[in-house]
Amino acid sequence: MRGRGATPIAAGERFLRSRWVDPPQGVEELDPASLAPGFRAAGVPCGLKGGGRTDLGVVVCDAERVASALLLTRNASAAAPVRVCREDCDPARLRAAIVNSGNANAETGERGYRDALSMRDAAAEALALAPPSVAVAETGTIGVPLAIESVLGGIGSVVEALGERGAADFAEAIMTTDRWPKRCTVRCGGVTLSAQAKGGGMIEPGFATMLCFVQTDASLDDADGALRRAVAGSFERITVDGQMSTNDTVLLQATGDAGRPIPDGLLEAVLLQLAIEIVADGEGATRVARVAVAEAASEDEAERVARAIANSPLVKTALFGRDPNWGRIAQAAGQALAGERLEELGAHGIDAEELGSGDAEAEIAVRLGRGEAASHVYFCDLNYEYVRVNAEYMT
Amino acid sequence: MRGRGATPIAAGERFLRSRWVDPPQGVEELDPASLAPGFRAAGVPCGLKGGGRTDLGVVVCDAERVASALLLTRNASAAAPVRVCREDCDPARLRAAIVNSGNANAETGERGYRDALSMRDAAAEALALAPPSVAVAETGTIGVPLAIESVLGGIGSVVEALGERGAADFAEAIMTTDRWPKRCTVRCGGVTLSAQAKGGGMIEPGFATMLCFVQTDASLDDADGALRRAVAGSFERITVDGQMSTNDTVLLQATGDAGRPIPDGLLEAVLLQLAIEIVADGEGATRVARVAVAEAASEDEAERVARAIANSPLVKTALFGRDPNWGRIAQAAGQALAGERLEELGAHGIDAEELGSGDAEAEIAVRLGRGEAASHVYFCDLNYEYVRVNAEYMT
Repeated sequence: MRGRGATPIAAGERFLRSRWVDPPQGVEELDPASLAPGFRAAGVPCGLKGGGRTDLGVVVCDAERVASALLLTRNASAAAPVRVCREDCDPARLRAAIVNSGNANAETGERGYRDALSMRDAAAEALALAPPSVAVAETGTIGVPLAIESVLGGIGSVVEALGERGAADFAEAIMTTDRWPKRCTVRCGGVTLSAQAKGGGMIEPGFATMLCFVQTDASLDDADGALRRAVAGSFERITVDGQMSTNDTVLLQATGDAGRPIPDGLLEAVLLQLAIEIVADGEGATRVARVAVAEAASEDEAERVARAIANSPLVKTALFGRDPNWGRIAQAAGQALAGERLEELGAHGIDAEELGSGDAEAEIAVRLGRGEAASHVYFCDLNYEYVRVNAEYMT
Repeated sequence: MRGRGATPIAAGERFLRSRWVDPPQGVEELDPASLAPGFRAAGVPCGLKGGGRTDLGVVVCDAERVASALLLTRNASAAAPVRVCREDCDPARLRAAIVNSGNANAETGERGYRDALSMRDAAAEALALAPPSVAVAETGTIGVPLAIESVLGGIGSVVEALGERGAADFAEAIMTTDRWPKRCTVRCGGVTLSAQAKGGGMIEPGFATMLCFVQTDASLDDADGALRRAVAGSFERITVDGQMSTNDTVLLQATGDAGRPIPDGLLEAVLLQLAIEIVADGEGATRVARVAVAEAASEDEAERVARAIANSPLVKTALFGRDPNWGRIAQAAGQALAGERLEELGAHGIDAEELGSGDAEAEIAVRLGRGEAASHVYFCDLNYEYVRVNAEYMT
């Protein structure tokens, strides 16, 4: 029931290799187990996932003068750790993050909030840091109380395991059903940047959380602005199934020790590659597509049309079926512009040829003929495996 | 790969039988081949679908003083017949409609428009009616030129076949891959009402059009208002996969010969039953659910949340998997209210128990605790069959 001869996009030797990622010149990829100088990380099993699987991770900045930025889900049903981060953290001065997989601690009421807080406080104590300088993130099952004793029992050993080459263990600790870990360490323009993410594998009982942690020794005047801009071009441009998680969290930490800024485009390229891997590792995904909408009346309109196409189950099944079906794209675009006048897009307005190719990455172009604005969205196919992982697991 | 022991909802002997349909007292169901007095209909094969299948239909009102109302898709990529209806029909005085299945005549450029116009004009001539009093509707493949010679060649025989018991043939003529025809004839309060619809079966190369034709001998002071109110509670409350067609058309015609109005709730009940059957016959559908959102801050908010839940692929696969997964409902609701504050919905705010039942119809209740407004949406499950019909057909 998998795709027809498609090879899922897997992390190879080179990390920055999607056709849509344009890294700055001179980027060198380092061992992805290594962290940017000044950071340590670790991942250990604490018993949440069972089977001895790594499920508790910590990343910490040893420099006191860290600049950080934290972006959290806008979902109104935000999970307990997200509420702790919102209410009891200093987003600009985060030294560390404690993260577990196996339980999202979402829809768990006041008990869930207390659990997330005590997890965070215990990590802060073990790291000898002030609690508001430690973020907490969780991912996994929702609606199930967190086994807080397991988490608290593991904090000593994860802090003890912290090391400069702990990025690979940390990336493993945040995985749920991701088919491969998503991480990289790159050097460019005299600065080092390491990043770990996890994404849209199925999460019992059923939805994916996006987590991403980025460390650098670059100096950042405006960490929040830099992170927002990079996320706007990467994690905010992807969709697996149009579903927004209760737990999404992105943390950027910078020591400034390198005495130089991040080279233009480096953060964007790393986050975009991670974002595309999250799509490529979407539930059951066999292919990734980018739909680029041009000639829109406004950027909002271009994005609305791109998202309507990217989230259309008819387009997503066509991507799976290698079917260059431009009619479905015209329909989705027309729906997004309901009530407005649109000339027929037809063969001249839509290039959907690559939908029919066997390639792992397909580009779709739509020209609306209504103006000069443009936008784009990355998405994956919808197939039998998506139905299987989401229908056959019973809560 | 079908559902687990589910029986698709099929039209049985009694038509008005969904748990959500509340027909007025004293409704009597008549032979669904019969039409309301004063109307004749027919369906014949003209060669568009091939294999001798019925694909050309006409419905006509013999009374000159007809009151009618016509609702058309708001999709900005509207098909040629929709544009003909918009630009060259008198929606309040429609005597007849000519309809074909097998080709939607959408995204077919100026040639498509001329074809739809000549099809309509030929039908008007054969019926000896003024062209603006004849509507045209088409459903089927998009992006493929209409075989207009086949249509024109069939108009003589379909007009010749017109009869007072032609509703069943007409209902068959408008079907694409519907698994069963959707039609009924009812009598109540001294008036007769007949209706024929078709819906969300797969349409090569891939999307469903909703068509519905309603005839009555009741008198209607405000046909347009009556139709809009009934559609607001029925066809505008359903979703199969969140995709809006290029060809949707609903036509109501009334002679007034019975000298009485339509009893309260009759039109609503008939259209709701047809709408629910369209959902039940959605692509691959094995179950129908109604999600009722209450305690919203506004009706718009309630509907936004209901639609987010109804179109969530995670909720739709849970409906297929008989999984009472309230976590996915909380997530979809939270996404629809992104950026706002929402108390945890949890077990007290969400009743998703019937998702886990084996019943063909499942009710989901969501209480947002934000106000007093309510709304609801009907939807079907997402399953392997949806993927198969949409991925395995190649354009």
